[in-house]
Amino acid sequence: MKKADKIPSGKSITRDSFPNSRKIYVPGKIHDIKVSMREISLNDTKNNNSTASNPPVTVYDTSGPYTDPNINIDVKKGLVRLREDWIDRREDTKNLNSITSEYGKKRLTDGSLDNLRFDNQRKPRVAKPGMNVTQLHYARKGIITPEMEYVSIRENQRIEEWAELNNQHPGNSFGANTPKGKVTPEFVRNEIAQGRAIIPANINHPESEPMIIGRNFLVKINANIGNSVVTSSIEEEVEKAVWACHWGADTIMDLSTGKNIHETREWVLRNSPVPVGTVPIYQALEKVNGKAEDLSWEIFRDTLIEQAEQGVDYFTIHVGVRLKYIPLTAKRVTGIVSRGGSIMAKWCLAHHQESFLYTHFEEICEIMKAYDISFSLGDGLRPGSLADANDKAQFAELETLGELTKIAWKHDVQVMIEGPGHVPMHMIKENMDKQLEECDEAPFYTLGPLTTDIAPGYDHITSGIGAAMIGWYGCAMLCYVTPKEHLGLPNKKDVKEGVITYKIAAHAADLAKGHPGAQYRDNALSKARFEFRWEDQFNLSLDPDTAIEYHDETLPAEGAKVAHFCSMCGPNFCSMKITQDVRDYAEKNNLTDEEAINEGMEKKAEEFKVKGGEIYLKQ
Amino acid sequence: MKKADKIPSGKSITRDSFPNSRKIYVPGKIHDIKVSMREISLNDTKNNNSTASNPPVTVYDTSGPYTDPNINIDVKKGLVRLREDWIDRREDTKNLNSITSEYGKKRLTDGSLDNLRFDNQRKPRVAKPGMNVTQLHYARKGIITPEMEYVSIRENQRIEEWAELNNQHPGNSFGANTPKGKVTPEFVRNEIAQGRAIIPANINHPESEPMIIGRNFLVKINANIGNSVVTSSIEEEVEKAVWACHWGADTIMDLSTGKNIHETREWVLRNSPVPVGTVPIYQALEKVNGKAEDLSWEIFRDTLIEQAEQGVDYFTIHVGVRLKYIPLTAKRVTGIVSRGGSIMAKWCLAHHQESFLYTHFEEICEIMKAYDISFSLGDGLRPGSLADANDKAQFAELETLGELTKIAWKHDVQVMIEGPGHVPMHMIKENMDKQLEECDEAPFYTLGPLTTDIAPGYDHITSGIGAAMIGWYGCAMLCYVTPKEHLGLPNKKDVKEGVITYKIAAHAADLAKGHPGAQYRDNALSKARFEFRWEDQFNLSLDPDTAIEYHDETLPAEGAKVAHFCSMCGPNFCSMKITQDVRDYAEKNNLTDEEAINEGMEKKAEEFKVKGGEIYLKQ
Repeated sequence: MKKADKIPSGKSITRDSFPNSRKIYVPGKIHDIKVSMREISLNDTKNNNSTASNPPVTVYDTSGPYTDPNINIDVKKGLVRLREDWIDRREDTKNLNSITSEYGKKRLTDGSLDNLRFDNQRKPRVAKPGMNVTQLHYARKGIITPEMEYVSIRENQRIEEWAELNNQHPGNSFGANTPKGKVTPEFVRNEIAQGRAIIPANINHPESEPMIIGRNFLVKINANIGNSVVTSSIEEEVEKAVWACHWGADTIMDLSTGKNIHETREWVLRNSPVPVGTVPIYQALEKVNGKAEDLSWEIFRDTLIEQAEQGVDYFTIHVGVRLKYIPLTAKRVTGIVSRGGSIMAKWCLAHHQESFLYTHFEEICEIMKAYDISFSLGDGLRPGSLADANDKAQFAELETLGELTKIAWKHDVQVMIEGPGHVPMHMIKENMDKQLEECDEAPFYTLGPLTTDIAPGYDHITSGIGAAMIGWYGCAMLCYVTPKEHLGLPNKKDVKEGVITYKIAAHAADLAKGHPGAQYRDNALSKARFEFRWEDQFNLSLDPDTAIEYHDETLPAEGAKVAHFCSMCGPNFCSMKITQDVRDYAEKNNLTDEEAINEGMEKKAEEFKVKGGEIYLKQ
Repeated sequence: MKKADKIPSGKSITRDSFPNSRKIYVPGKIHDIKVSMREISLNDTKNNNSTASNPPVTVYDTSGPYTDPNINIDVKKGLVRLREDWIDRREDTKNLNSITSEYGKKRLTDGSLDNLRFDNQRKPRVAKPGMNVTQLHYARKGIITPEMEYVSIRENQRIEEWAELNNQHPGNSFGANTPKGKVTPEFVRNEIAQGRAIIPANINHPESEPMIIGRNFLVKINANIGNSVVTSSIEEEVEKAVWACHWGADTIMDLSTGKNIHETREWVLRNSPVPVGTVPIYQALEKVNGKAEDLSWEIFRDTLIEQAEQGVDYFTIHVGVRLKYIPLTAKRVTGIVSRGGSIMAKWCLAHHQESFLYTHFEEICEIMKAYDISFSLGDGLRPGSLADANDKAQFAELETLGELTKIAWKHDVQVMIEGPGHVPMHMIKENMDKQLEECDEAPFYTLGPLTTDIAPGYDHITSGIGAAMIGWYGCAMLCYVTPKEHLGLPNKKDVKEGVITYKIAAHAADLAKGHPGAQYRDNALSKARFEFRWEDQFNLSLDPDTAIEYHDETLPAEGAKVAHFCSMCGPNFCSMKITQDVRDYAEKNNLTDEEAINEGMEKKAEEFKVKGGEIYLKQ
């Protein structure tokens, strides 16, 4: 179908940085760490005779080393192993001589793959016998790891350096343990210990910059990538991952099917600055040539080991699709729409047995804790249409996921829970509330939800609405949906559109929850907008390229653009300035507001007339 | 700046119809009327040996005669005057010999405009002395007008013909008077009489197809069009209006500035199948060369008459920007961002007087009722940033709008109220609740609201989130925002993007409110999706063109697309079908569900193995 794949050259990998931005590295206080962020410089505010500087704005940065022009990147070598030393120092892991999965070994000795294998292989790492290497395990023992300190600094975005501009509305977080101000390392440790947050951080993915997923932190987003039988090369997949992170993806999921997914995954992991998730059953199914009934625990187990040794940070596993729930989908409009869910349903029906994922759950936990892989307990019975939302099948599965959460926690394995799907707005909160209750506040990770079924081609928007709302209600991570959902495979343009839409949803949720500092960037951008600092407005936006492009598209209609906001006044004689003068006047003369308004405004009326009463600003 | 404008040829006007769709006309029962709708035909469901037909789906259609291939359209003549006869029969209006506004007369006698004047002019109409010709007036007298019957039929979308597919979730409409089933003409009359809904229907715009704006009807959307000094010809503006209606705009606002806006408006009105709104102060300001302090009641009044005689259906008037509220904006991050609001603020400050709009409000009411123009009471102090949301200035103005609503109602003038702006998600409901309370459930008409400030280039999405939510909470009409908001003037692509985004928001709101029949189209589309009826999926979507384009873009990855939903099963052997068989088995054998599951599934497991256990559908 397509030409033989080959080793990526790295030529197509995005290395752009953001305008007026520089990469900064904030040092830790407990550990020897440097947390990367992006700092955006702003222009001065110029007002008649005075000039006032605007402090730079620091923003959360998922783009990794790619946006640091001082770092040399070679995709063939992979990214620097940021966490290797941290993991070493814990002395609870050992290096294996070679990979141990049957499948991995087979691939390694297959000469025909030499032309596309990642070369700079390190030895896989695993927990020493009897050791548990999860962040949850450390947290419960009271240990603040470098990963925990890293995310505490990262979440704050230098909140401590922010000026009074950081005025924001008190939010409504529906009883969450929203931090009151700065996120401390201890706060992070405690949230993880309680199971309310996870740091997906496989010891075999030391390249990734630690990030945290939890209701009481910034809302995160995931972008799905992945090749299929007929499309995409390895280099394209690596670039898709880098591209998604560039625009703000906090994690990526590699949902590749087709050939060479083992090798593709290796390239993606070695070059990904963010945690990578997978759905191992997809690959397991490939190994049995697509025959679900030929799946077995042994094949699945070998796939888990294979991917664990590569460094996958979280596994979506559809353990909740139990035999007895399958008939509950009988009267649905859209049956079972989860791919993993239908694979397992098929297996259960073919064997008339309980799902082998469910019966081997504790063995899976044993694997997870030897690498610190987080569970993403899949919602195989999620609704694929509004009609099927919040039905018995969906909620029965969710209850099972709640039980499994407690079992995973018994093993100190990190857990998040996947959620729907297609849900009308008024039924979204019920999902969130039930998840919090059944799963004891383990982080929720939802796809959308899509709030209507009638807009294929625009499902980033139908779902962005639901995503913003469920993020507000307490969802910790939002899985993006691209405009191609239901229609085809996303290209780079679609990936960006999906990521930006979900950054909007996540940020809208942070604002509504009243997350500390969430409104800072909004305030800075609005101030720039009001002061006609166009460049700053672009640079502070989620997508400066598009903002500039749109701005330039309608030039020379400069008048119209100025007219669009505070058009009639302009910075030099806008109504805001007039009334600010009135306030100043009141303060100076020790008048009441009422008096000031009367006196001040009469005075201003005179002044205005004297100046000629021009209301359009001379540009 | 641009070449002299000229009479439109009509060549660029969109006349496309929708795929597999036909225009239907549903007759009235009280009046001799024909209500236009669009009927989408569907393909049969084919399943092994059986074939079942799917009933056609009727959808609300704002596109007017343009999508009826049997109708001949000549933009130089204008659309058929659908309502002329209805108005005649009421015998409460008279025809004037000529237009009466000073400005209108001047334009009429200006020979240099002959080359762009709309020729097929009819005589303007006005209420006979002492008569009140508003729909509210009729409604309160117990009269069901043809307009009222028209909208009752239109709102129903032939709900009475729908099959059992019309299962939908009960919604939550927050105490609204949501209809229980079919909308009756009497329901419409009563909602109008109560002030909870309006039919914007100037007697001088008989071309428009009646539509209703109210909390207890389908949520509507408005699209702004309008030329500026440097862009767009008259033909482009007419096409932009037709284009916006084609994709679903329920009303349009002509926000033209610059030259020839009188003539442009005439062309737009004569060719618009939907109500047209304007902001008369924009044109009044042009008449005083942009000097707000030179505005006067006389100039404004003449502008109202000018536009009333042309047929504008609703006027945005910023009556709530009172002198005393202006200082309340002093400490805002973005001051006054409404253009009309800042014009009036400037006038008030320059004269240190109460707004002439406020002091002449009852005279304005007298004009409105002589033509049946609806008020859209403008929110001149709406927040232009999250920071300014729900502040004293905004809410003080809203309280004034509430007072004015009652005065307008005293005159039997129809009223809606405009709303924000920029508001974080958790503060949206407060806006809606306060509006309902202050304005006694007069319809709310909001811009967005935008839920974050940081995404210029994507403000259709930041605002689409807020629009969907406020629509759910009770907002009657959503003013679209395009991707160009804050950056430039929208082109046709942007107009379409804005309209579709807002159709999504409005529809998501209808679903959440539980509006009768709202879920019908979703169910039909989802059923088509599940049955792999790709064409039906496209044809039932809001934008078939884009759905088809995206689908075709990734062909031949057919396998991947099928795989995306119910991928592992396909229509012939999907898990839904299996479990449906189990249900049927239970029913036939009079077993309990539990027994059926056990028996049936064992049997199915056998059958499945016999068939070879293939889970991929053979394409």
